[in-house]
Parts: sequence; structure tokens; C-alpha cells
Amino acid sequence: MSNLQNDLFLRAALGQTTERPPVWLMRQAGRILPQYRALRANFPDFKAFVKTPEAAAEATIQPVDELGVDAAIIFSDILVVPEAMGLDYEMIEAKGPRFPKVIEQAADVAALDAGAAAATRLDYVYAALRLTKSQLAGRVPLIGFAGAPWTIFAYMVEGGGSKTFSKARRMLYTDPELSHALLQKITDTTIAYLRGQVAAGADLLQIFDSWAGELPPAHYATFAVPYLRQICEAIPEVPKTVFAKGAWFALPELAELPCQVIGLDWNITPQYARQVVGTGKTLQGNFDPCALYAAPAQVRAEVQAMLEAFGPQRHIVNLGHGVYPDTPLDGVRAFVDAVRAYAFES
Amino acid sequence: MSNLQNDLFLRAALGQTTERPPVWLMRQAGRILPQYRALRANFPDFKAFVKTPEAAAEATIQPVDELGVDAAIIFSDILVVPEAMGLDYEMIEAKGPRFPKVIEQAADVAALDAGAAAATRLDYVYAALRLTKSQLAGRVPLIGFAGAPWTIFAYMVEGGGSKTFSKARRMLYTDPELSHALLQKITDTTIAYLRGQVAAGADLLQIFDSWAGELPPAHYATFAVPYLRQICEAIPEVPKTVFAKGAWFALPELAELPCQVIGLDWNITPQYARQVVGTGKTLQGNFDPCALYAAPAQVRAEVQAMLEAFGPQRHIVNLGHGVYPDTPLDGVRAFVDAVRAYAFES
Repeated sequence: MSNLQNDLFLRAALGQTTERPPVWLMRQAGRILPQYRALRANFPDFKAFVKTPEAAAEATIQPVDELGVDAAIIFSDILVVPEAMGLDYEMIEAKGPRFPKVIEQAADVAALDAGAAAATRLDYVYAALRLTKSQLAGRVPLIGFAGAPWTIFAYMVEGGGSKTFSKARRMLYTDPELSHALLQKITDTTIAYLRGQVAAGADLLQIFDSWAGELPPAHYATFAVPYLRQICEAIPEVPKTVFAKGAWFALPELAELPCQVIGLDWNITPQYARQVVGTGKTLQGNFDPCALYAAPAQVRAEVQAMLEAFGPQRHIVNLGHGVYPDTPLDGVRAFVDAVRAYAFES
Repeated sequence: MSNLQNDLFLRAALGQTTERPPVWLMRQAGRILPQYRALRANFPDFKAFVKTPEAAAEATIQPVDELGVDAAIIFSDILVVPEAMGLDYEMIEAKGPRFPKVIEQAADVAALDAGAAAATRLDYVYAALRLTKSQLAGRVPLIGFAGAPWTIFAYMVEGGGSKTFSKARRMLYTDPELSHALLQKITDTTIAYLRGQVAAGADLLQIFDSWAGELPPAHYATFAVPYLRQICEAIPEVPKTVFAKGAWFALPELAELPCQVIGLDWNITPQYARQVVGTGKTLQGNFDPCALYAAPAQVRAEVQAMLEAFGPQRHIVNLGHGVYPDTPLDGVRAFVDAVRAYAFES
């Protein structure tokens, strides 16, 4: 950490005292930036973009240059993991991902590659991380990431996004054994992948459990938390953030994971989260992405209110979800600038 | 109530002692039943189906005949309210509703009809209720319903379903005054509409806040709860159920509403809900609709576990969401039969 010019983000993650909370945005490398849209225009195919390390590095660094955020997150996609396991997907413009083939039975799971054998196919991500790390030259920390096993499972069984994820959720009831087998293969691959990211320079790892909120508490405890735990335990080298969107009910169990940061969506008040999580972890979040549509003065007032609600220390400012692509840049700037202008009382 | 052959549902709603919990399913009148699919085939247009009282009454009664549920819920749609206010919608097969015109500015809100003037356009629902009531002949209570003001607002501003409801949610930040004006017009119409439903024979009213979980707690307190309160206070004649899906964070405020029943989704454990709501209200729910895909023996075991978690009295069994259209009838039967075979310890 000593060679970082701005280590605010890592210090906050580790629970060290900071002068102000660090700030970054989920999906900060994306369509909100005109520079990103220009870069994106060079790639008719989203996946080709993700697989070009030079382009991924450029997209990763753009928000650092343009917004002054305190961390960069590698530009990639959580679905590179199922692809590396042998389940190909298409990214359909304005619609989202689609898997032509889905996991339905034991033979489908058996046919998947897993662990290091699968993770070696993700060399282009490691290359993007190394390039980004070099180009960042220590300005801010670099975040690596992966989808949580349950969320990746949901896509692999459902075949894409869904209002209900009823196909994926059905399998947890009708074939728990097969579900666990698939979750374990995803977990093994994710661990190998995240180790590769650390070797390539990631300073912190974030696990995105985007569909956590679809599960009943008992299923989340059975089919999600144990795999999150395996991942956190397997990679002690760097701090880890677990962001389980919608899983307010699992907060007591997430608080017990060997991770340093818990991500929060905007349904949870900071007071409630701190009460359940205790003071042993840093909280990350949880500004409503829709508040960024407001005028800058109102954004600043809402940021101020959020900062006061979280109170001093162990807080990394972020949104409660990825920034929406049509968010006005003025709102995003007001958000980042308001945090950067803030100072904890000493 | 004295002229009902089976008043278990109403007694449970009112907190009176029952021998077993009553059971019904959200969306029980629907595609899970072969009789419904046969009836539906007569109407190329879903809205024509909803507007034909004889067909709506038949769909309403089918699950009473076929499944033996303890309540009937009128077959209709929450979007008849915006339509009656002057905002027409289309129901697109397998996609959902779409509003060709949406609410964007003050003139759009001013142009809407509201209250009794709008609610008189819903005579076809009152006719369906009267016909159903007559044909039910006191077998089970009849539930009327409407969407909650925030959920109707979300459709009217967004123009249809949405992954984020960012257009609707943006208006709450950028124009709270206009938002309140629209919410009040929806509320006035809903009150007149629900009064009409009671006059036509509804024994209990359920308010569906399907998109409650999209809002941050402060917005739910400002833009949702006060309108739910107005509705509950305006209609003291019958018991009321408020089902705010995803709004676990608002449970303490929902517990203060003058309603008798709180609906729960499957994210909330019965223990947590009872602890927050206290013993003054009946809880309704919250079986995971995906559990109905399991084999009947497993469904029965899951029902047993849910019943034990809720404990005796003040519980109406339901799902945590509407039943999914492709749910096997055997699973639904196992669910209903397991509840009907249950007896509270005396």
C-alpha cells in the first residue's frame, strides 16, 4: 500500500482511520462517460471489448481521470466465469445476456470445466489488470471482482436475466445435490480466477451477489453463504467486499464472513446495517442511484444526509446499485465532489 | 359473516380463534388451472376478458371449486384504475402491460380524472363482484383488491414494467410536488373504487404494493405509507390487507396502519415479521412460489415447516408472491391440502 498515492479506499476497507470516506461508483466505467461511449463505439461486440486488455484498461481508468474517484474497478463482466467453464453466452444490446445452452441435468454439470483449468481461459482479464495497474501508476487502488456463486448459478440455469429466476430457484428445491455440485464447480473456478486477479495486481476483490434478494433466508444460508465463505477463506492476501443485493435478511450471516467490507443496497438504512453488522466491518454504499437524476445542489444535500447517517469511519461511499446508464454526468460529479469535500470531525 | 358457510378467512383476518389457518393463493384464478386456460381461450384480448363480468366471475370461482381454497379473489387487474383515470394501457401477451402515453408533467396529471368520476367507469368490476357473490352463495368470502398508489404511480410514469423503475423513481426526487399530486389523484380514485367493491359485496380488501421494494425507506415513508393510510382509514367497513412486496424495512410503519392483515413475501421469516409487527395484526403468506415445483411430499413438508414457524393463530396461509403460471397443479393441490389437514393445537 505504501506505493499508492491515494490509499484512502484500502485504509477504509481495513478499518484504519481516514480523513474522509473514500468514494467510487459501481459501473463507474460505463455509459455515463462520453469517453467510454467513444471507446465502446470501436467494438460492435461487447464481449470483444471485454476481451481486449488495452480497451478494458482504458475504460477502467477513465472514471479516475474524469471523476476523481478513489478506486478503479477492472472493466469486465461477471459472466466471463461461466464462459470459461464452457457455457458460452451472448450479450444482446439493450436486453442483456443470453445463454443458448443452459444447465438442466447432471451431465451438463459434469461437462463443465472448473478450477484452474477454467480460470486459465481468463488470461485476458489478468492482462487487463496488469496493464491497468501499470498505467494507474499507483494513483488509486485497483478492484478485481467476480459474481457470487449463486448469481452465476442463476444465469447458468435460467439462461439470462429473469423477473422471477424461477427455473434456477426451482432446481434448489427439486435437485439440491446437483445444485450444490454446480455451485461448487463455480466456486472452485471463481477462487482460481480471483487468485489470478490478485497475482495480476488487484488490491481488493468484490463479490457481486446480484440476485441474492431472490432467495428465501433458508436457501441463502444453504446455497449462497457457504460458497461465499469458501471464496473469502481461500484468498487471505487482499481485503474482500461482499455485496449481496436485496439480502438484508442475511446480514447477520454476512457479518460473520471473513471479509472486510459489506456492500449495502439503498433499502437498508445505515443505522440498521451498522446495528446488525457491528463495528468489525466497513460498510459500503448505499446512495440511491435515482438520486443522481436530481439537480447538483440536491445531490449534495442527499450525500450530506447519507454521510451523517453512516457516521464517521469504516464507510466507503458508493451507490446501492450500479449507476444507471442514462444518469447525468453533472449528478455523478456532484456526488463524488460532495464526498471529496467532506471531512470527518476529528 | 353469519351467512358464510366457511368464514375461516375472515375470522383469521379479524384475529378470532380458528381451528386451522385459512389458505388461498395470490393469482389462484389463472393459468395454473386448465379450466382457466379453456375460459381464457375465448378472449383474444386479456382486457376484454377482465371486462366481461360473467367470465370474471367464472374465473374467480374456479379455484374454489377446483382447489378448495378458503377465499375467492375477484379476477381483475390493478391497471383498471389508471385506465379509469384516463390513461389507457395495452396488455401484451407474455410481456406485460404497456402505456402508450405516460405521465411526465403537470398538465398530464391535471388531465386525469379522479375519485368517483373515474371510479364509475369501473362498473364492470362491481358487476363481476355482484355476480360472483351471488354464484358463490356464501361458500367462502370474496376478496376485492386494488394496487397501492405508489405501484400504480410507477406504472403510469414508467409506462410498463421495468428492471429499475428509474423514470418513476426519478420523479420522486426531481418533482416531489407533482408526485404527490398524482399519488393523491390515484388515492382518491382507489378509495372510490374500493368503496364500490364493498358495496358490490367484497368482504375484505387487499392492497397490492408490488413495487414497494424499489424505494428507499425515506421515500416509502413519504410517498407510499401516507396514501396507504388514507385508503385504510377511508373504508372502515371491511377488514383490509396490505401487501407491500419487498418492503421489509417499512414493516414497523405498516404495523401501525389501520389494517388487519399484513402480507409477507418469502424473504421475511415469520419470526422476524411477528417480532416487528407484534400480535395486533394477522400475517399473510409467505410460502416460496418456487417450492410448488417440488414433489407433493416435499411441498407438504415445507408447508408443515412454515406453519410451525408462524405458530398458532393470526395467520392466513398464502404464497409470498403470485403463483407462477407454469406451476404444476399437483404442487398447488399439495399446498392447499396440507394446510386444510393441519390443526392448531388446542
